[in-house]
Amino acid sequence: MSGTWGNTIKYTIFGESHGEGVGIIVDHLPPGLELDFSAITKDLQRRRPGNTITATTRNEEDEFEILSGVFNGKVTGAPLCAFIRNTNHQSKDYEKTKDLLRPGHADFTGFIKYKGFHDYRGGGHFSGRLTAALVFAGGIAKQLLAKHHIRFISHIYQIGTICDLSLRELDLSKHDFSDLYSKDFPTIDAAIGPVMQNKVLDVQEKGDSIGGIVETAIMNLPAGIGSPFFDSIESVLSHLVFSIPGVKGIEFGDGFDLAKMRGTEANDEFYVNNGEVRTFTNHCGGILGGISTGMPITFRTAFKPTSSIAVPQKTVNINTLENDFIEIVGRHDPCIVPRALPVVEAAAAMALLDLLSSTY
Amino acid sequence: MSGTWGNTIKYTIFGESHGEGVGIIVDHLPPGLELDFSAITKDLQRRRPGNTITATTRNEEDEFEILSGVFNGKVTGAPLCAFIRNTNHQSKDYEKTKDLLRPGHADFTGFIKYKGFHDYRGGGHFSGRLTAALVFAGGIAKQLLAKHHIRFISHIYQIGTICDLSLRELDLSKHDFSDLYSKDFPTIDAAIGPVMQNKVLDVQEKGDSIGGIVETAIMNLPAGIGSPFFDSIESVLSHLVFSIPGVKGIEFGDGFDLAKMRGTEANDEFYVNNGEVRTFTNHCGGILGGISTGMPITFRTAFKPTSSIAVPQKTVNINTLENDFIEIVGRHDPCIVPRALPVVEAAAAMALLDLLSSTY
Amino acid sequence: MSGTWGNTIKYTIFGESHGEGVGIIVDHLPPGLELDFSAITKDLQRRRPGNTITATTRNEEDEFEILSGVFNGKVTGAPLCAFIRNTNHQSKDYEKTKDLLRPGHADFTGFIKYKGFHDYRGGGHFSGRLTAALVFAGGIAKQLLAKHHIRFISHIYQIGTICDLSLRELDLSKHDFSDLYSKDFPTIDAAIGPVMQNKVLDVQEKGDSIGGIVETAIMNLPAGIGSPFFDSIESVLSHLVFSIPGVKGIEFGDGFDLAKMRGTEANDEFYVNNGEVRTFTNHCGGILGGISTGMPITFRTAFKPTSSIAVPQKTVNINTLENDFIEIVGRHDPCIVPRALPVVEAAAAMALLDLLSSTY
Amino acid sequence: MSGTWGNTIKYTIFGESHGEGVGIIVDHLPPGLELDFSAITKDLQRRRPGNTITATTRNEEDEFEILSGVFNGKVTGAPLCAFIRNTNHQSKDYEKTKDLLRPGHADFTGFIKYKGFHDYRGGGHFSGRLTAALVFAGGIAKQLLAKHHIRFISHIYQIGTICDLSLRELDLSKHDFSDLYSKDFPTIDAAIGPVMQNKVLDVQEKGDSIGGIVETAIMNLPAGIGSPFFDSIESVLSHLVFSIPGVKGIEFGDGFDLAKMRGTEANDEFYVNNGEVRTFTNHCGGILGGISTGMPITFRTAFKPTSSIAVPQKTVNINTLENDFIEIVGRHDPCIVPRALPVVEAAAAMALLDLLSSTY
Repeated sequence: MSGTWGNTIKYTIFGESHGEGVGIIVDHLPPGLELDFSAITKDLQRRRPGNTITATTRNEEDEFEILSGVFNGKVTGAPLCAFIRNTNHQSKDYEKTKDLLRPGHADFTGFIKYKGFHDYRGGGHFSGRLTAALVFAGGIAKQLLAKHHIRFISHIYQIGTICDLSLRELDLSKHDFSDLYSKDFPTIDAAIGPVMQNKVLDVQEKGDSIGGIVETAIMNLPAGIGSPFFDSIESVLSHLVFSIPGVKGIEFGDGFDLAKMRGTEANDEFYVNNGEVRTFTNHCGGILGGISTGMPITFRTAFKPTSSIAVPQKTVNINTLENDFIEIVGRHDPCIVPRALPVVEAAAAMALLDLLSSTY
Repeated sequence: MSGTWGNTIKYTIFGESHGEGVGIIVDHLPPGLELDFSAITKDLQRRRPGNTITATTRNEEDEFEILSGVFNGKVTGAPLCAFIRNTNHQSKDYEKTKDLLRPGHADFTGFIKYKGFHDYRGGGHFSGRLTAALVFAGGIAKQLLAKHHIRFISHIYQIGTICDLSLRELDLSKHDFSDLYSKDFPTIDAAIGPVMQNKVLDVQEKGDSIGGIVETAIMNLPAGIGSPFFDSIESVLSHLVFSIPGVKGIEFGDGFDLAKMRGTEANDEFYVNNGEVRTFTNHCGGILGGISTGMPITFRTAFKPTSSIAVPQKTVNINTLENDFIEIVGRHDPCIVPRALPVVEAAAAMALLDLLSSTY
Repeated sequence: MSGTWGNTIKYTIFGESHGEGVGIIVDHLPPGLELDFSAITKDLQRRRPGNTITATTRNEEDEFEILSGVFNGKVTGAPLCAFIRNTNHQSKDYEKTKDLLRPGHADFTGFIKYKGFHDYRGGGHFSGRLTAALVFAGGIAKQLLAKHHIRFISHIYQIGTICDLSLRELDLSKHDFSDLYSKDFPTIDAAIGPVMQNKVLDVQEKGDSIGGIVETAIMNLPAGIGSPFFDSIESVLSHLVFSIPGVKGIEFGDGFDLAKMRGTEANDEFYVNNGEVRTFTNHCGGILGGISTGMPITFRTAFKPTSSIAVPQKTVNINTLENDFIEIVGRHDPCIVPRALPVVEAAAAMALLDLLSSTY
Repeated sequence: MSGTWGNTIKYTIFGESHGEGVGIIVDHLPPGLELDFSAITKDLQRRRPGNTITATTRNEEDEFEILSGVFNGKVTGAPLCAFIRNTNHQSKDYEKTKDLLRPGHADFTGFIKYKGFHDYRGGGHFSGRLTAALVFAGGIAKQLLAKHHIRFISHIYQIGTICDLSLRELDLSKHDFSDLYSKDFPTIDAAIGPVMQNKVLDVQEKGDSIGGIVETAIMNLPAGIGSPFFDSIESVLSHLVFSIPGVKGIEFGDGFDLAKMRGTEANDEFYVNNGEVRTFTNHCGGILGGISTGMPITFRTAFKPTSSIAVPQKTVNINTLENDFIEIVGRHDPCIVPRALPVVEAAAAMALLDLLSSTY
């Protein structure tokens, strides 16, 4: 049930954090596609630990090997398998504490589901490391979407209580926000980034972690993509976005704020612009009846604080079933949000490509 | 892509608001199951327009006919088809304004997706009327889940800016909340219901509408249900919940509030209780790594204000592609939230049953 | 698992022989399609009992009602549900013998699978009557394929040991065989039809039944349709053809004869004809590596003799688990093959349309 | 559409004959399963070229690497990826003749489907080499089925016009046929093997090839597995068996012979044996209404002659679109059938396991 997703283009993810490596198969790609591997590498670097001052210093190489589906530099159309071999892992760290359930992690739920046979080292198959495979597959999806001029804008919208400007408040047709892509700490308001970073450093010094929100806009998706029951854009996007470890909420357009609004405030009135139907506002996030309006798709993704924290926590020894304490050592990201941007984009790109490919 | 959903038990929805009727096929039910049709009827009544003072007075009968899959009062195991024939509809109302796109509705996106061939009467296949079919199928799913003692608590958490108590703040093991099920306007705090209802009446008098939030807890789901990548509980639940017209946001556990929290606040520490692993708190909403912890699954679903409002709105005539105005006549629910509770439960039950059935 | 099939266009079958009726949902049809219902009715008549001298005289009306998905005479793109209500059935016939397993039927296997809760009347969900739903859906598929000039030739190739000419021996580009479509007993060699019919009558007089083979050619399927692993044309076609009750074998091109052949005999050599690659012969049945060559797709489908025969048979009373005898009364088709042609075409059309729709 | 198959347990195949290697992902295996890798290696050896006197001498190592899903020697439940790296391939052989379509191969159809971008070396993704991945996955499936005592008997039933004894004529309950598994050239009648081998050698000397038939029985499948419409045992088994390169026909039980039979001959009468319902005969191959009867599942699979033959053949240069000739050099199996037995078993095991897992 879990490892394969997609109706038209199918993705199959596999691998573990401290096993041989992580990989993904992408099936039903158009033959002849010339992949820009440097762009994929760029996205993998955006995701990679160690690329910001606060991130974990584990040096993951993230070098992928193409095991199938590419010939003479082009996609053949047969299943493409990419594999990222694990190189830098110290499994012994995990042996000592393997029976102590780390709060916030999947140690307990994985133990139950897999009856104790899961690879517990560094989260195993649950590890955030598998998002490298998502970013790889999403990188391919983004290149296919780019042929339709569909592109992604994402930024750190919130960390703790500190908020960036919102894409909702800006005229997205007047900026291209391409600088966000190359920033180490991508915020729209250049002044807010350092404030957020200080907050993260502050939290980190206390051995604690902090949550945040990624905001994303998808530009140039044509009107008419998606479906009512059961493949609405919201359904398919949320399905994939909630596959990302640590995500606990998603909202489209004005989302939860719509609960407070009146119909007169929330409805996006229509007008004609150069023979095209547009809406004056975009409270619906570019989606009506599960189908794209042609306006930007906007959504916000809430991430919980990193579960690995350096303070002692109450827990249970799953072997002895006795109460115990755990102290998690080693450096961990105090905030996952900066690295999560390319992952959210990847999940969204995979979702959209599937919807686009299954349109009449 | 859109009409069929499910891995183990498959649901296929069909029908239109002003056509012959709406229906749903539920396939792969366990043979011999004795359905409690009165419980399903009860849920259909909870969803039905006209059951609260503020709801639309269109009298939908919602009487379902079983076209297949039941024999001698029991489920056979072959596909079960339920059909609710439309009886009370005035299609002519819609002919006059069929070219005027109703803001907030799927008139425009449906027109584009279906190239102008969709049934535009009353929303057609996009209509909220199809949620009666969801409630039917969800009713079956709830009865199957009840055999595992899994049950649903849902209430109106918010309308406009008025909030009920939250299930997050209550000890769910100490109340059963069964009274919510029979209330016309289900809030936990009895005093807040009338305040909300007055707000809805006030909005209605102005020809306007208002949004809100449904809060749900799923009790007694055993630990170990769900998957990492790509069938997390959050993925599958959100997929189905976003199939409900009008839903624009979902959050699990503390959801968007987690963005503001520290790891020390957000992590749910473990302890042993009578040989079972429990968490002191439930900020994660009963889900870690996409898999159930055994604690209640809690989530909040944001609904936008009803799109049909009585005030004139700017729009476009899709036939002439000229700017125009629309005034929507007829009575419509000023707030969809009270009727949405059984629909959210139905979607969640369908999702959970699929996850439960596909566990080892 | 059983009732829904298809990747792009999804079919969901439901219903029982002696329940309310039988139906099928066809989802993801192109909006605006104008269906030729008279052509579908024609196919239903070809399948209908009573249209040949030897067939059962049960008068099934086979009048379908469109419950959804068609508006103003055109397909909307939302799920299309067609329902054929049962009118002429005498359930009491089946009550008396319900515990006696009819040899060759699914009485025993259905009892085990559905734990005794299946609708046993006239085969219930296993009944050949459900092929009316297949013919309906296949009729739609054929109309969509016809837009690509894809058409079907099928005839009674064999009954007992009596064989018609084979499509393998004829130059399919020189005949259109359209007369087969309107024949009551479609054979290519006009002289062989009466011989076969006499054989069937002879068998019928003895209260016995007889098997046969349907041969089919699919014309004008373009080259490049299908896939290696796991969606070869043979895989997908056989999957659907084996869904037809009574089918026990399928072979493509020279099929089982290829076992006796040499590579020099079996290989179809290539040549260029007007800039197109063709093969001199077509031993492979128009399929290499699971993918169409552009030559006719040819296959043969073996049907077992009708299981309902008028002679006493040894059996078991499933209720008492004692040995017993059964005598099946009532008129039954002594040979299913003449009625099976539109069903085989329907299954093949559904399969091909799905493959065609999922091509890049 | 092509690379992933399965409802409960999902298989995703990838790789090319002369690329990095071939592999398969098996998802949703039961955690804790201890795999007998030596049994899988045994099956890979049965399939391997060079294990019979007549087979190609290309020495494929077939050593698999487990990239994920196994930890401490046991299946974790997360996706299991096995990879067999290519070691012994001479790609240059294929460069010279890459534009000359080999008759009987997928060169032409692959070229069209993949628009000329497929890996043409040695058949690429179409190569019989990918059946090593099937054998690996099928080997796992067989071990899981063995826990239910389900086992496979397969033998070379026919090569050219030379036939072995048929499993249909033998009392399968009285022999276990386990010796077939270790024979290099598995026939039931020990005398017929050498005759067949001489025939193959004779054909080989002429630079030609020859077809044949594999016969298989699946023992101890319990009654009640499978479904009517659309997942009959025949549907699902044939779907996977036709994924094997070179297969052109399949028949269950008496298959095509049923066309010649009467109902009185074909029906399998029931009797009670120690409180269990059995049939005296098994003309239906252990399947009624798509569902297992509890008797052995028997089927025959027809393979065409190996397409690679040493005699000159007419063909087309796909680059210049001119008529040409091709002479295929190198050693090739003159008959694929002896190596095909474990592949047929693997495909059948994968199919059955899926059906078994999706039963109520």
